[in-house]
Amino acid sequence: MRSPVVKSCCVLFLILFLSRHYSVSATKKTLNPKKPCKRFILYYHDILFGGNDVANATSAAATNATKLGNTAFGKLVVFDDPMTKDQHLLSHPVARAQGFYFYDMKTTYNAWFAYTLVFNSSDYKGTLNIMGADMMSEKTRDLSIVGGTGDFFMTRGIVTFQTDTQEGTKYFRLKMDIKLYECY
Amino acid sequence: MRSPVVKSCCVLFLILFLSRHYSVSATKKTLNPKKPCKRFILYYHDILFGGNDVANATSAAATNATKLGNTAFGKLVVFDDPMTKDQHLLSHPVARAQGFYFYDMKTTYNAWFAYTLVFNSSDYKGTLNIMGADMMSEKTRDLSIVGGTGDFFMTRGIVTFQTDTQEGTKYFRLKMDIKLYECY
Amino acid sequence: MRSPVVKSCCVLFLILFLSRHYSVSATKKTLNPKKPCKRFILYYHDILFGGNDVANATSAAATNATKLGNTAFGKLVVFDDPMTKDQHLLSHPVARAQGFYFYDMKTTYNAWFAYTLVFNSSDYKGTLNIMGADMMSEKTRDLSIVGGTGDFFMTRGIVTFQTDTQEGTKYFRLKMDIKLYECY
Repeated sequence: MRSPVVKSCCVLFLILFLSRHYSVSATKKTLNPKKPCKRFILYYHDILFGGNDVANATSAAATNATKLGNTAFGKLVVFDDPMTKDQHLLSHPVARAQGFYFYDMKTTYNAWFAYTLVFNSSDYKGTLNIMGADMMSEKTRDLSIVGGTGDFFMTRGIVTFQTDTQEGTKYFRLKMDIKLYECY
Repeated sequence: MRSPVVKSCCVLFLILFLSRHYSVSATKKTLNPKKPCKRFILYYHDILFGGNDVANATSAAATNATKLGNTAFGKLVVFDDPMTKDQHLLSHPVARAQGFYFYDMKTTYNAWFAYTLVFNSSDYKGTLNIMGADMMSEKTRDLSIVGGTGDFFMTRGIVTFQTDTQEGTKYFRLKMDIKLYECY
Repeated sequence: MRSPVVKSCCVLFLILFLSRHYSVSATKKTLNPKKPCKRFILYYHDILFGGNDVANATSAAATNATKLGNTAFGKLVVFDDPMTKDQHLLSHPVARAQGFYFYDMKTTYNAWFAYTLVFNSSDYKGTLNIMGADMMSEKTRDLSIVGGTGDFFMTRGIVTFQTDTQEGTKYFRLKMDIKLYECY
């Protein structure tokens, strides 16, 4: 009768050891780019302040472009932009995007973003914090969701930008495909 | 005598399979907002440079406010601010907060922060990197701790801001409640 | 014959319970600073725009230094810098570093960085997003890799800066030791 008990104990310790090992390697294998734990698409609308359109404008240049090239290198824009579920600028915003972008290439328009999506609706309350390069010449580009609060407590993920429309320097709209891979 | 051995083996493989499964789902369920693995409260003191107070000032505006509204939209302030354990500006700083904030709303004062807490004391050596929206009209607001180094190696968490005092545009103090949820 | 079976079942449930427990605590213990899952060293070259060297310059000051001290406090520089495998500025770049830094100390030169490493080669396609303090008076300093995309999907890690050369205010080179601790 003792032998099976001994064996069971051996199995117990072996498994404890292995389960620990598996936990360790878990950080290397568990996320699948095609299977976010949450996903939704929002549209970002940016209306750059021109000097006398305070009522409509949602962003303003805090610095002037430098003379390094002719594509606005160094121009930094602060924004508080509406986010909508569809492409219409005047749809009810479901979030605000608060942050900044600046242009950073001397040969073409290219930008870098850091901002917070602030949700305060019946659907979601909380924030998503995002940063990354917006390589505007690419059809789509991925930025990192580096943290979240409230309903998005401690989340991480990827947001894929796609230029939806660009009307001169005055208005542009980005499609933001928000994919969360760590949900708590 | 062989049957228990066989059973033990079956148990072993079943458990290996399951423990793997549990590890995978671990990224979805393991963090509890009420149970940080580390927590402490510090006070942030910001003294904005006025032009001739170099000795006292800890921050300075790198850009002027734009004309989009009257609440400093686009004003970007760089800071190297002391962090203290209590509310007294002159207490021994336990860390420095190095980074920037800018104002980003045209109807009220509202800010966005990105900064590093630099610890270099007998208690802690290392850094915490933080970013997020500071919705100043809310009583408390949460920003993301997106990474750490040294004693805070690879940590993540939430820092809750609370305005502790505001003396015109010259001095303000924030209570920062720092909660880490991933500790290594 | 029944007793071993019962024991095995007990072991099974005990282990399921424990393996779950281990998974939960896994977020606290699994990363070892000395054992990144990926590591490589790149050199960052920054050539500050002087006014008439558009062809060579890779960065430009978007704001002027403030008068808070004499060490460029508040000067914000936007960059699109080449990253090379060796120390030679003219080696084929394996990535671009796009982002900004600003100086933030009134008594000495000290900086704060946020940027994206953009890889688009046969080795790697994707980005790494980085932020943190560059305490230039330290021999080495650690910043956080807060996210990644493409081949670096959802990664996190640490990048260690070391000043490799500094030629006045015109050119400097940083050695960046990139260590990833979460690989997927």
